[in-house]
Amino acid sequence: MEPRQMAWNGWGDPARATPLPEPVTRLLQDLLGVRPSDAPRVRLDQVKVADPRLPGDALTALAQAVGDPHVRADAETRIRHTRGKSTPDLLRIRAGEVADAPDAVVLPATHDEVLAVLRICAERRIAVVPFGGGTSVVGGLAPEAGGFTGVVALDLRRMDALVDVDPVSRTATLQPGLRAPRAEELLREHGFTLGHYPQSYEWASIGGFAAARSSGQASAGYGRFDEMVLALTVATPEGTLELGRAPRSAAGPDLRQLVLGSEGAFGVITSVTVRIRPAPATAAYEGWRFPSFDAGTAALRKVAQDGPLPTVLRLSDETETMIGLARPDRIGALQESGCLAVAGYEGEEQEVAARRAAVERVLREAGGEPLGAEPGESWAHGRFNAPYLRDSLLEIGAMAETLETAAFWSKIPALYAAVRDALTGTLTDAGTPPVVMCHISHVYPAGASLYFTVVSAQGPDPVAHWLRAKHAANDAIIAAGGTISHHHGVGTDHRDWYAAEIGPLAVDLLRAVKQRVDPAGVLNPGVLLPSSR
Amino acid sequence: MEPRQMAWNGWGDPARATPLPEPVTRLLQDLLGVRPSDAPRVRLDQVKVADPRLPGDALTALAQAVGDPHVRADAETRIRHTRGKSTPDLLRIRAGEVADAPDAVVLPATHDEVLAVLRICAERRIAVVPFGGGTSVVGGLAPEAGGFTGVVALDLRRMDALVDVDPVSRTATLQPGLRAPRAEELLREHGFTLGHYPQSYEWASIGGFAAARSSGQASAGYGRFDEMVLALTVATPEGTLELGRAPRSAAGPDLRQLVLGSEGAFGVITSVTVRIRPAPATAAYEGWRFPSFDAGTAALRKVAQDGPLPTVLRLSDETETMIGLARPDRIGALQESGCLAVAGYEGEEQEVAARRAAVERVLREAGGEPLGAEPGESWAHGRFNAPYLRDSLLEIGAMAETLETAAFWSKIPALYAAVRDALTGTLTDAGTPPVVMCHISHVYPAGASLYFTVVSAQGPDPVAHWLRAKHAANDAIIAAGGTISHHHGVGTDHRDWYAAEIGPLAVDLLRAVKQRVDPAGVLNPGVLLPSSR
Repeated sequence: MEPRQMAWNGWGDPARATPLPEPVTRLLQDLLGVRPSDAPRVRLDQVKVADPRLPGDALTALAQAVGDPHVRADAETRIRHTRGKSTPDLLRIRAGEVADAPDAVVLPATHDEVLAVLRICAERRIAVVPFGGGTSVVGGLAPEAGGFTGVVALDLRRMDALVDVDPVSRTATLQPGLRAPRAEELLREHGFTLGHYPQSYEWASIGGFAAARSSGQASAGYGRFDEMVLALTVATPEGTLELGRAPRSAAGPDLRQLVLGSEGAFGVITSVTVRIRPAPATAAYEGWRFPSFDAGTAALRKVAQDGPLPTVLRLSDETETMIGLARPDRIGALQESGCLAVAGYEGEEQEVAARRAAVERVLREAGGEPLGAEPGESWAHGRFNAPYLRDSLLEIGAMAETLETAAFWSKIPALYAAVRDALTGTLTDAGTPPVVMCHISHVYPAGASLYFTVVSAQGPDPVAHWLRAKHAANDAIIAAGGTISHHHGVGTDHRDWYAAEIGPLAVDLLRAVKQRVDPAGVLNPGVLLPSSR
Repeated sequence: MEPRQMAWNGWGDPARATPLPEPVTRLLQDLLGVRPSDAPRVRLDQVKVADPRLPGDALTALAQAVGDPHVRADAETRIRHTRGKSTPDLLRIRAGEVADAPDAVVLPATHDEVLAVLRICAERRIAVVPFGGGTSVVGGLAPEAGGFTGVVALDLRRMDALVDVDPVSRTATLQPGLRAPRAEELLREHGFTLGHYPQSYEWASIGGFAAARSSGQASAGYGRFDEMVLALTVATPEGTLELGRAPRSAAGPDLRQLVLGSEGAFGVITSVTVRIRPAPATAAYEGWRFPSFDAGTAALRKVAQDGPLPTVLRLSDETETMIGLARPDRIGALQESGCLAVAGYEGEEQEVAARRAAVERVLREAGGEPLGAEPGESWAHGRFNAPYLRDSLLEIGAMAETLETAAFWSKIPALYAAVRDALTGTLTDAGTPPVVMCHISHVYPAGASLYFTVVSAQGPDPVAHWLRAKHAANDAIIAAGGTISHHHGVGTDHRDWYAAEIGPLAVDLLRAVKQRVDPAGVLNPGVLLPSSR
């Protein structure tokens, strides 16, 4: 394995783990009844993985396909490829529960090797889990292995090249296993940026961004990842798809959009051509205060509809503002009132200055009070830290999780209320009243996303306890006309609500597509669609 | 039928037909060897349509579904629903050739009536051609009826309501049979615009825009139609699809993008929710001259990549500029040199002024010479006239047709040369040297579209004569890495090149989708995909 790797039972770099400040811990204990967990602390070397169960010749065939050193079946490698990074995932693995561990991990280096691995697995009915950064928070790496002869994690980290930069078209072709920071580093050498900074940025991979329709914190300026993708190469058990010859086309349905969001269920993305932009000369972030979430929402809508847009634009509700979640360095300081918005600007100095002035006019007219650079810079400085914070919360016995949705603007107020009520009601009824925070994380002319963070005590069976609340929130999202996910994806966790969202005929369409490219049903079974076995 | 209807054997309103100026006719005769055609002129009442051949109870069942007055089988109605408006379509119908006439025309008024018609036709293996404005130029209305018991044109003109306007989300829900000018009129009553002005604007329908991924002349400002669509309802023989709950989602593949561009092969779009914008307070168009097509292309690329964009942005090559095609009121004046670009601006006065100034700076720096308002206004004034001009050219015995493609910027120069060479070479070799003109009609950060217009003598068998050149151009497009269509669509005419563009596995994916929603294969057979019968 490469030197830098994720904590096996938490987020990110173990060296960056930071305990909560004592006053915050006390506050959580006093306010939410958080108590230290009784669960035993399991060390990596104490975790027991079941014996691998692949068919007899499978490991040999896989080793022939990718080379012996690139098929791993040792316990640690298997544990490190077990599920993703949702709170239930972390609670389970912290308790040493690794029932979903793959039987082997295969590391192909080329598109043809991926094709070979898929054929080997299809022939032997071995489930295949494409594995990029391993950052799924929706059960995207937890296949339903029933009916299969084993599970292989297809780790794409060896496919980590910047294949091509076209400075005229401003496009770049990237391999799927490139981690985002490395992709950014390689593009900067050519003077370009991708500008894609989701919260998972430090660990997530290019292939995962495409497969899961990732959206970054700077989407207002750079667009969503699915909007950046211009061409894709996909390996399937039935052959190769090469899609995308022009920015836009009227030649039939846009099949790129059928692969984007397919979460490994239709194939393995082996190459992604994306739009790139000149690396920005300047970046500035600033804070704004709005008297209420409604007022701030109206302001963001005005900016999204009439433009110009900042590069980053977010708005925390009253609770999130009060708690200080948007400014991790000041969490618990409790001194903010109203609702904090963060606007960020990246680009050429002159262009940024003009855009900033234009946005400032709109925000002021909409009742915003400028707070200067400090809250914006504070947000930017801590923008990738929230998952570390979650580890610290779990550590002291709190439950902490996030979920998100999107809808048209006219539905946002009712959707916001319905999800809050569902989370608060369910967890309060269960004896663990939560703090529910929310922010608008992404804006569009026609609507926006809502990103919720929930903190409560864990209750006696933390996973089951949380899932009750999560399911109530999912029900509320669908009933209020929202989409079950704006950027986390479907995975196994959202599958039933996804089916409700698109309806039975659309589910059948997806099944028909999957049946054609994956007749054995080995690709990420149970992710996106119910497993056909 | 409603009072305003298309010429049965040409484009648009017969009252607007305008003969070519005598000097232009002479020029075409002298320069291209254009000679009056020997083909007899057929009047509508002289056209012979075969007897309708639907199964015995079909007309009764259809009449029960939509009401007796809304099933038509008279000769005129059938002739008026025969094929579309490509040059081969016009040459054939002008000669009285209506072998593709549908056996009946059915006019449903609701989604449920469409569902009923589709079920009736699927049960009886009657092919169904969804019919909006009837403006297809790629054989989208010419199904392959072999193996079917008949053909019904499903004319959607009775579904012509503006269903809903959501001023908060800035969205509107429209029925598919709404013609574009009427949709615009209804939206303007609410203070909004769609801003979608393809050349077919005066006749095309909302459903057709969606089904064929239309792109308007103001796409730089308002976006393509597929980018405007937020939600869709689709009737299929196997039930209903309702897609789109948010501007963007990570809940699986974007299935809206599977319906957009499906050209009636997967279902009938019965409702479209689109993004709308405030009706512009001001509109201004202006001309620019560039020393060469290369220089102009580089300038457009700079604007598309660095912004801001005008609302309209186009660039004619040297030949098109010289002929004056971009300014139909001055065609043949032959006084222009270099390459004419047109930039248009629509919006609020202040915003337009700022944007215009910014674009002007970029165009000047890129070597553009401002020509003032006159050439821009001239273009705007004549923007929907080119199809009338084609009728006049056919009338004097000339061949005139258009075709288009798109690619990434770095491929544009070679694509431009390859398509020109293919058209010029083929037609010259066949004894009818053409004039080939081209303009960039749509720009994106990563690429652009090329729109070609060809005029030559007709040759003895005009349809076959043109198709040789057209097929050579299609081959050149695919070989040079372009898409087979940027906004005309696939239809039957582009089907083979479309298959080459996306590859056999992707074709099979589309087949799998079609099989699920249309197991009898009755929806527009042979359009997009080869007919399965």
